[in-house]
Amino acid sequence: MTQKLLGVDLGGTQIRATLANSDGVMQSRVATLTLADEGPTAVIERIVTQIEAARGDQHIAAIGLGAPGPIDPYNGVVIVAPNLPGWHNIELRQILSRRFGVPVYIGNDANLAGLAEFRFGAGRGSNHMIYITVSTGIGGGVIINRRLLLGSRGMAAEIGHVTIDLTGELEGRCEIGTLEGLASGPNLAKRARRALANGAKSAVLEWVHGDIEAVSPRLLQEAAEQGDEFALDQYALTGRYLGVGITNLLHTFNPQRIVIGGSVWLYAGRYIEATMWETIRQRAQSPDFWNQLEIVSAALGDDVGLLGAVALAADELERAHG
Amino acid sequence: MTQKLLGVDLGGTQIRATLANSDGVMQSRVATLTLADEGPTAVIERIVTQIEAARGDQHIAAIGLGAPGPIDPYNGVVIVAPNLPGWHNIELRQILSRRFGVPVYIGNDANLAGLAEFRFGAGRGSNHMIYITVSTGIGGGVIINRRLLLGSRGMAAEIGHVTIDLTGELEGRCEIGTLEGLASGPNLAKRARRALANGAKSAVLEWVHGDIEAVSPRLLQEAAEQGDEFALDQYALTGRYLGVGITNLLHTFNPQRIVIGGSVWLYAGRYIEATMWETIRQRAQSPDFWNQLEIVSAALGDDVGLLGAVALAADELERAHG
Repeated sequence: MTQKLLGVDLGGTQIRATLANSDGVMQSRVATLTLADEGPTAVIERIVTQIEAARGDQHIAAIGLGAPGPIDPYNGVVIVAPNLPGWHNIELRQILSRRFGVPVYIGNDANLAGLAEFRFGAGRGSNHMIYITVSTGIGGGVIINRRLLLGSRGMAAEIGHVTIDLTGELEGRCEIGTLEGLASGPNLAKRARRALANGAKSAVLEWVHGDIEAVSPRLLQEAAEQGDEFALDQYALTGRYLGVGITNLLHTFNPQRIVIGGSVWLYAGRYIEATMWETIRQRAQSPDFWNQLEIVSAALGDDVGLLGAVALAADELERAHG
Repeated sequence: MTQKLLGVDLGGTQIRATLANSDGVMQSRVATLTLADEGPTAVIERIVTQIEAARGDQHIAAIGLGAPGPIDPYNGVVIVAPNLPGWHNIELRQILSRRFGVPVYIGNDANLAGLAEFRFGAGRGSNHMIYITVSTGIGGGVIINRRLLLGSRGMAAEIGHVTIDLTGELEGRCEIGTLEGLASGPNLAKRARRALANGAKSAVLEWVHGDIEAVSPRLLQEAAEQGDEFALDQYALTGRYLGVGITNLLHTFNPQRIVIGGSVWLYAGRYIEATMWETIRQRAQSPDFWNQLEIVSAALGDDVGLLGAVALAADELERAHG
């Protein structure tokens, strides 16, 4: 298919857009600051401008757009966007399809990242794949029989919010006992700071001149790179939590491949994967859940947002045309 | 469609078979003891006899069969059947399709129970449904967009094996910290016995004349019916565990309906549901996960096994013929 698709990645900092074909080959790419504080109307105008800039004089068959937070993909509505003030129930599909006269599809960014890896990246060739991003939060996208799992209202695959430790305190909305609460980057640093405050020893203590609050994920990563036992132990524990979360996904979805992305994994996965795999082998009900399982790193890097939007448009057009 | 389908429910105690149409209306039903100790060959012969008995002189379009334990539904192989000694990698599809000359489909009994409730029971009219059985174990079946979730090797929806309390001891294969380990019937009784041994007071203590080991799920249910605080507390805790498990399913699948069956729920659900719902409301990331959710009781009773086999055959035939 030589149809041209327009992909938009709406983020809290940047709006990016690309003109691409359904194989994910990008022909143009543009970006501008979101300037979210100016409110929805101004941001939507910038989205329109970026689409026009990326499109040029080409004819496009559809527009795909990824946005953070809860989306209603069936109606193309951004319900809430955490980093975009004033965005509540914005009917973005309707606004953009009226403007451009082509079908518009909208999805949650983590879901679309999963779809992008499935179509264009590390998930290619699999039929049952789960994408996990381990970063400041933990999110995901689930591919079942080559289709993106959306659920009845488009809110499926919130895998970071799955409780794996119900004895964890309910801080706000059960932050602590969830996979995100236990295995995200901020939690790694928080856990480390708590241990250091309780007297644990680490090279990072010297680097921050004893100011424990200054211990960041970045410093812990550097310490791990230098073989610091304390930092390595922190990543090992993150690996155990992630292993529990993945084992739950294996029992739930029985995937053949898991693709992991996000800054924590991409920069420090090598300190995480041993205990992650150990935990999976310990906890899986049977080796059949993991003995043909592949766990691989995400391949698309910073382009995953743009390519997710393109993947969504390609996917929906294929479905529409059987 | 007036096609006749043959459904077989292969259990550790009984083999049951029915001749039914694709709407689940049963025209005949037969049953015999499994006598599993006689080994696979004898049991397979009895399956054949039951199929012949249920079929009579009718022409059948397909056979569906449900079996306990891990099944390879793609190849129609019973990998292991917990209550059937000697059953390892039995190619039941091949054996039966050669014998009867019609397509044969095989599935895991909990999955098929979910499919039966979806097609013929309490799940009718929904598109995204999860079936949970709470009994001596906890199993399930997941319907996504009107299709049964199988996973890459047919082992998906093992929802009882999802860890919700990773600090729970690893007894055998992580029995304790899993949903099944925490919320099944045997665990309810075990937990109650432990509390009674530690001095808790309950009417059941008199009934068993102080023999704590004699405290069974049945006695606890009777005590709850008589308003015994201790027994009610035990069910309330089961409701909390089940609530955590269901919240995880909401975040994972975003279903519109949950159908609960199994003896624990059907006999004592009224002592469980208040804390279950309370936990869901507490732990869900947003009310959107539950404010349109229906949680209902399974409708098919003891017929769910037979009707699951029929549902599988109907489902597969529909797919085969587009």
